Amino acid sequence: MPDLASTQLRSIFFLSNRTAITAETLGHSLLAQFPDIEFTTVTIPFLDTEKKAQKVVDKINKAGAQSQLKPIVISTMANEAISKIILQSDALVLDPFDRFLPDLEETLNQHSIHESGQSHRISNESLYESRINAIDFSLIHDDGMTTKMYDQTDIIIIGVSRSGKTPTCLYLALQFGLKAANYPITEEDMESEHLPKTIRKYQNRLFGLTTDPYRLAHIREERRPNSRYASMEQCRFEINRAEEMFYQHRIPYVNTSKMSIEEIATKIVEIAGLHRISKPPINHIDVP
Amino acid sequence: MPDLASTQLRSIFFLSNRTAITAETLGHSLLAQFPDIEFTTVTIPFLDTEKKAQKVVDKINKAGAQSQLKPIVISTMANEAISKIILQSDALVLDPFDRFLPDLEETLNQHSIHESGQSHRISNESLYESRINAIDFSLIHDDGMTTKMYDQTDIIIIGVSRSGKTPTCLYLALQFGLKAANYPITEEDMESEHLPKTIRKYQNRLFGLTTDPYRLAHIREERRPNSRYASMEQCRFEINRAEEMFYQHRIPYVNTSKMSIEEIATKIVEIAGLHRISKPPINHIDVP
Repeated sequence: MPDLASTQLRSIFFLSNRTAITAETLGHSLLAQFPDIEFTTVTIPFLDTEKKAQKVVDKINKAGAQSQLKPIVISTMANEAISKIILQSDALVLDPFDRFLPDLEETLNQHSIHESGQSHRISNESLYESRINAIDFSLIHDDGMTTKMYDQTDIIIIGVSRSGKTPTCLYLALQFGLKAANYPITEEDMESEHLPKTIRKYQNRLFGLTTDPYRLAHIREERRPNSRYASMEQCRFEINRAEEMFYQHRIPYVNTSKMSIEEIATKIVEIAGLHRISKPPINHIDVP
Repeated sequence: MPDLASTQLRSIFFLSNRTAITAETLGHSLLAQFPDIEFTTVTIPFLDTEKKAQKVVDKINKAGAQSQLKPIVISTMANEAISKIILQSDALVLDPFDRFLPDLEETLNQHSIHESGQSHRISNESLYESRINAIDFSLIHDDGMTTKMYDQTDIIIIGVSRSGKTPTCLYLALQFGLKAANYPITEEDMESEHLPKTIRKYQNRLFGLTTDPYRLAHIREERRPNSRYASMEQCRFEINRAEEMFYQHRIPYVNTSKMSIEEIATKIVEIAGLHRISKPPINHIDVP
């Protein structure tokens, strides 16, 4: 009886009057500190009227009654009236707006607008455009498709096939507004002791990705089952050669096998000393 | 004397023992509630030793002394010892871990591990892979390049050139693990009263993007200055035709001109009733 089982898990609600991405991110960070707890999650974005809030409270209370476990609400609610309604639920409500805005008001000696900030959604047009441009750039320069604007690139990610270059570049563009190209190291490149010609003159912008050969073989196997490409032997060979190349030409690199894309991207920015746009996701700035 | 001016702004620090992406996101959401305050920001990720923390405290205090304005620290620190050091700085320190973990411990009746959770970085391998696969899918199906796997797609985003289809699809893949294709509405498509042939049979997976003609003209002007493509007349024509198409064929759509990519993506997921992976960015789950 799967239904019965699922009702006995604790319910976690991520709420926001906007996208709820911040609430989810923060919530999962907090919950990761309790690795033994099992739970179900519900995300409710655009919770922007008191009527909707009342319905959500009913839902929260029902989940608590069914499971006999106090629900947990992680909320980033920039509307005081709605916030008050949610606080009346049976849940433990954790809301950084609620907790931190009074302290901030005191330190800044200013009242917060404490509202959803509709007018600031695209708060920095040129920042927005620079991120869109970075995405375009990364798409054009994916997988070595072209190298013609390498002189404009912030970084060139190199690595063997399926080492994580493309998602890393896209994340660098989306999150940090960086122009990130990527170049695949081919078997031909591996035969030479020199750096591949097309990237040689950009040596100081190169950054390597490597991974665990087992993991690589597993990922490649999904793509081309039972192929030489996916064999352990081939993966081990390619990874060895790539790492030798990084070492020999003093190219900074990271091993991505236990890292998330977010971590890989952040590490690259740090190690390569790139300028990280501190304004978050296009304008997460007011997209709680 | 720009140096003097910049030292008189209040300093905001985003700190974390991990990527600091959550700290930045949360911090900017909070600061957006004080639109009149000017400040400079510093992001310090991977703050994972007490020695580094001591140096950061010196930096924070120095910034405060120079500007005569109390610095503000937004921190997601999953290491208690480091957290304590930061709390001794002269700044207002806002840390959701510090504030919320005790309440969570009480409700869950369990101690938090209160550490960086190294072992959970890629906590859900299949979720990770599904996101990577979604990115691959979106790249292959960008800009109508191919339509061959449309039967596997979660959603097909349609709109005129430069209406925001590509970044939206990539974000849907990266953040929510959704297979999102996109198809550009061409002038040829606009001449017909029928839906374009290639997307006709997927009508229930279509989602439209539209935008303000002025904004579109501005964006296109960057790409092809003084072209017919970028003219107000052409942009107005295309937008009108696209919106008629959405209306006539009952395709849900959003106007993206005042929305961030995050908001567009979240709206699409909501309106189209798609399953949103609640586990955040690959595993933001423990990437504070």
